[in-house]
Amino acid sequence: MAKHIDLFWSCGMKVLITGGAGFLGLTLARKLCEKSYLSLGQDPQQVIDCIVLNDTVIPQTRPEGIDERVSFVAGDIAERETVGKLVDRDDIVIFHLASIVSAGGEADFDLAIRVNLTGTLNILEAARARAGAPRVVFASSTAVFGGQAMPDMVSDLTKQTSQTTYGMTKTIGELLINDYSRKGFIDGRSARLPHIIVRPGRPNAAASSFCSGVFREPLKGEDFAVPVPPQTLLPLLGYRNCVQSFIHLAELPADVLGDDRAVFLRNQGHTVHQMIETLKGVAKRNGLVLGKISMSHDPVIAKIIQGWPSQIDSARAERMGFPADTDLDRVVQDFIDDFMPS
Amino acid sequence: MAKHIDLFWSCGMKVLITGGAGFLGLTLARKLCEKSYLSLGQDPQQVIDCIVLNDTVIPQTRPEGIDERVSFVAGDIAERETVGKLVDRDDIVIFHLASIVSAGGEADFDLAIRVNLTGTLNILEAARARAGAPRVVFASSTAVFGGQAMPDMVSDLTKQTSQTTYGMTKTIGELLINDYSRKGFIDGRSARLPHIIVRPGRPNAAASSFCSGVFREPLKGEDFAVPVPPQTLLPLLGYRNCVQSFIHLAELPADVLGDDRAVFLRNQGHTVHQMIETLKGVAKRNGLVLGKISMSHDPVIAKIIQGWPSQIDSARAERMGFPADTDLDRVVQDFIDDFMPS
Repeated sequence: MAKHIDLFWSCGMKVLITGGAGFLGLTLARKLCEKSYLSLGQDPQQVIDCIVLNDTVIPQTRPEGIDERVSFVAGDIAERETVGKLVDRDDIVIFHLASIVSAGGEADFDLAIRVNLTGTLNILEAARARAGAPRVVFASSTAVFGGQAMPDMVSDLTKQTSQTTYGMTKTIGELLINDYSRKGFIDGRSARLPHIIVRPGRPNAAASSFCSGVFREPLKGEDFAVPVPPQTLLPLLGYRNCVQSFIHLAELPADVLGDDRAVFLRNQGHTVHQMIETLKGVAKRNGLVLGKISMSHDPVIAKIIQGWPSQIDSARAERMGFPADTDLDRVVQDFIDDFMPS
Repeated sequence: MAKHIDLFWSCGMKVLITGGAGFLGLTLARKLCEKSYLSLGQDPQQVIDCIVLNDTVIPQTRPEGIDERVSFVAGDIAERETVGKLVDRDDIVIFHLASIVSAGGEADFDLAIRVNLTGTLNILEAARARAGAPRVVFASSTAVFGGQAMPDMVSDLTKQTSQTTYGMTKTIGELLINDYSRKGFIDGRSARLPHIIVRPGRPNAAASSFCSGVFREPLKGEDFAVPVPPQTLLPLLGYRNCVQSFIHLAELPADVLGDDRAVFLRNQGHTVHQMIETLKGVAKRNGLVLGKISMSHDPVIAKIIQGWPSQIDSARAERMGFPADTDLDRVVQDFIDDFMPS
C-alpha cells in the first residue's frame, strides 16, 4: 500500500490556472477534475493531485463540478512573490489565462501593462525557477491582429499588428513564450483564441462580449442590443472545444509545435445575422421564448471589432489534431444543456 | 536682442541619444552637430540647443566632431530614475539606440531583458510623462526575423519570429513603440537596421560583427578569419546612410508611417565573397596592403547568421524617401576616408 502511494505521488502533478475564477478557468478546472490526469509524454499519464485556481477575486463557495483537489488562491500575478508561492513545485503545468481584456485595456493602459506584461513575466520567471522546464499554456487572442496592413484572412504566419493594448501585450506574451521555450527555461505554448461562445453570467469588458450576449440574454428572456452591424463576420469557437484545445495543447509533444509555439485554435466564421437565425431555431426546438434582439450601433465596440480579423485560417491547428465545432446549433445547445435549468 | 534669444529658445530642442557612446550614437551626434536642427513639421526647423549622449561607459575625452552642445551622461536605462533625469524637457527628440546585442543577449538572457525590455519601457514612460508626445526613434534589427517559417525574402509585412533574445526584445520594442504612439503617449518610430558597415574600432558582441571586421581588420593590415561560408548573402547598409536614415525617420510626418511605425532601412545584398572582392579593389586603388583573410567556420556565429534573413524587401522605405547606398565600393571608401589616417 505504501508503495502504491509512493508511485501515485511520484507521478502526480499540480495544475495552476491563472484567471482561474473566470469562466474558461473554471470550465478547464471542471474538465481536469473529470479527466484526473494529463499525458505529458514521459509516462502514459500523470495524475493531477492538486489544482490551484488563482484570481484577484475568488468565489465564496465551491462552484459545482469543482472537487476537493481544487483550491482557490486570491492574489495579483503582478506581484512576483505571490506568483512564486503559486509555482511551488517542479511537477507543475500552468495554464496562464489571467488577463486584462480588450476594452478594459483601452480604458486603463497601465493596468493592462501591469497584469498582461509584468504578470506574464512573473509567471514565466517562476516557471523558469523550477526544475525540468514546466509546461506553460498561455491564452492569446485574435486581438493580436489588426491595422492597415492586416490581410482579409489571417493565419499563424500573419504579422501581428494589434491596434489594442490587450492585443499588443498578448503578442508580447507569445514572443516571451517562444523565447523562454527556445532557451529551455520552460516548455511553453500559446493558444490564440477566436471569440469563445456562449459565456454564461454577466457581460465582461471584452469588446467581443456581445458574441456571447447575443445568445445568452435573449435565452434568459432579456432584450439585447447588438453593437455591430448584422453582416459582421466573426470567428467563433464553443467553450467546450476551447477547453479541450487547452488540454490538447498542453499534451502535444513539443516537436509538433516547432519553433513558433503560438497556434490559432480552430473556429467557424458566422455573421451576426446567422448567429441570430441559429439562435431562433434552437430556441424554438427547446420551447424557449427569446428576449427581443435589436441593432444599436456602438462606435467604440464596432471600431475594435472591425479592426480584428473576420477570417482565420486554422489549418495548422487542424493538422495538429485540435478539436473543432461541428455546427453553431450544437454550440448554442451546449450552453442550454450546461447552464439553463430545464 | 532679447527677443531674438527668446525666439531661439522657444524653438530649441534637446536631443537624447541612448547608447550614445557607441559608434552609431556618436556618428549620429556628429551629424546633428553639423546639421544643427531637425525639421519636425510645426516650424520650418527646430534648432538643437543640447545633445545628451547617454551610455553605461562614457569617453574620458571629447571625441572629434562632438562640439560643446553635446554632453555625455553615464547611466543605466534600466533605472527608471536615471531615465527620468535624461528626459527632462518637453521639447525633446529621443534616439533610443542602447541595447544588449545578439551574441551578448544569448550569453546573458537576464541582462538582455533588463536593458532591452525594462530599459525601453523606462524610455517610453519617461517620454509619455512629457507634454506633447515627443518623437522617439527606436533602433530595431534584422534579428527580429528567424525560425522555421521565415520566408526567403522578408519585408515590413513579415511575421517576426526571432530566434535570439535580442531579436525578441527588439520585436517587443517595435510593438511598444506602435502602441504608445497609437495611444498618443509618444510619436514613435522604429528603424530596422540591416548589418551596418564598416564600424571602426574593436569587434563587438554582435554575431554580425564580422560584417565590419572583414573590411576593417585587413585594411589595418591585420589578418581576419571569416566565421561564415563565403557564399553567405548579407543585407548591408553603410553607416553614413544609416545615420541619415535615423534623421529622415525622425523628421517624417507621422501619417506617412501609418499605424505600423517599424520600417526596414534600405540595404544591398552582398555575399561574403563579393565583400572580399570589393575590398581588394578598393585597397588596390588606395595603395593599401591588406591583412590575410581566411575562412574559419564558427558554428555559434554561423547558426545565428543563417537564422537571419539574407534578403530584405525595403520597397516601403524607398517609397518613404529613405537614402540608399549606391554601391559597396563607395561604402568601403567612406570608411577609409573617415577613419584611416592617410
